[in-house]
Amino acid sequence: MIKPDSGRPNDFLSLEDISAGQRFISRKYELTESDIKAFARQFDPQPFHLDNTAAQASVLRGLAASGWHTASITMRLWTESIPIAGGIVGVGGTVAWLARARPGDSLEVHAEIADVKRSTSNPRVGTIVVRSETRNQHGKVVLLQEVELFVPGRLA
Amino acid sequence: MIKPDSGRPNDFLSLEDISAGQRFISRKYELTESDIKAFARQFDPQPFHLDNTAAQASVLRGLAASGWHTASITMRLWTESIPIAGGIVGVGGTVAWLARARPGDSLEVHAEIADVKRSTSNPRVGTIVVRSETRNQHGKVVLLQEVELFVPGRLA
Repeated sequence: MIKPDSGRPNDFLSLEDISAGQRFISRKYELTESDIKAFARQFDPQPFHLDNTAAQASVLRGLAASGWHTASITMRLWTESIPIAGGIVGVGGTVAWLARARPGDSLEVHAEIADVKRSTSNPRVGTIVVRSETRNQHGKVVLLQEVELFVPGRLA
Repeated sequence: MIKPDSGRPNDFLSLEDISAGQRFISRKYELTESDIKAFARQFDPQPFHLDNTAAQASVLRGLAASGWHTASITMRLWTESIPIAGGIVGVGGTVAWLARARPGDSLEVHAEIADVKRSTSNPRVGTIVVRSETRNQHGKVVLLQEVELFVPGRLA
């Protein structure tokens, strides 16, 4: 993993520095019950994200994080692990919630560059596609994403 | 819009009650600068979401919400506007951030049922696809999503 916080600007990747197959692995993020409930109170106040008893009786079979919470945690881990010049600016993409993220889970992101495309209308910039797996401590993928990011070239 | 909070269980929609073309419109959500920065500090601590001066100099041309913040706000508005029996449980889908969400924006979700599919392996349940536009006060779509949700049938 390239450290984005070393203070040397040339640690940040421009479009020319990125190629398909490059991989980035994040630190581990410990997901707590209070984190799950705090996010849910603000953005997804449904019983199975807020109340342990209601969650047991629900289709989720126990308290689980909002899918958008898992996606937001993944973004946090990306910002610490994928050092793109100009920052991580998403265009769009896909999300698939493949398993529940539970209290006590330790989440880790494994991301790989799936594609690099230079803009035909403005060749000084382009986009990349990041294929990202957010895995729990058992190696199970809880969130699978393919997200297209805007990336400037060195001359942008 | 069907009110999910009337207390009558039959206000909640089972798979049989849902058909393509049904529409749901949320209340308006006022996005503040402090909301944008608070979400960013926790999940997307990049300068263009945290610092007005840095944001002006960035590709975002001014402070803007994290795309995952906009998605999370949209989820909040869904939970208040789309009354599905058993709750809103996402399987996966697409996101496209088409415009910036700025401090002072008033966001409103316009969602439409795009598809309804009964499970072939377990016909008591199914999925629906929700096509959702999160619009600002000028009617501009900032976030376009198509998300597949798990929905139980009446006999599930």
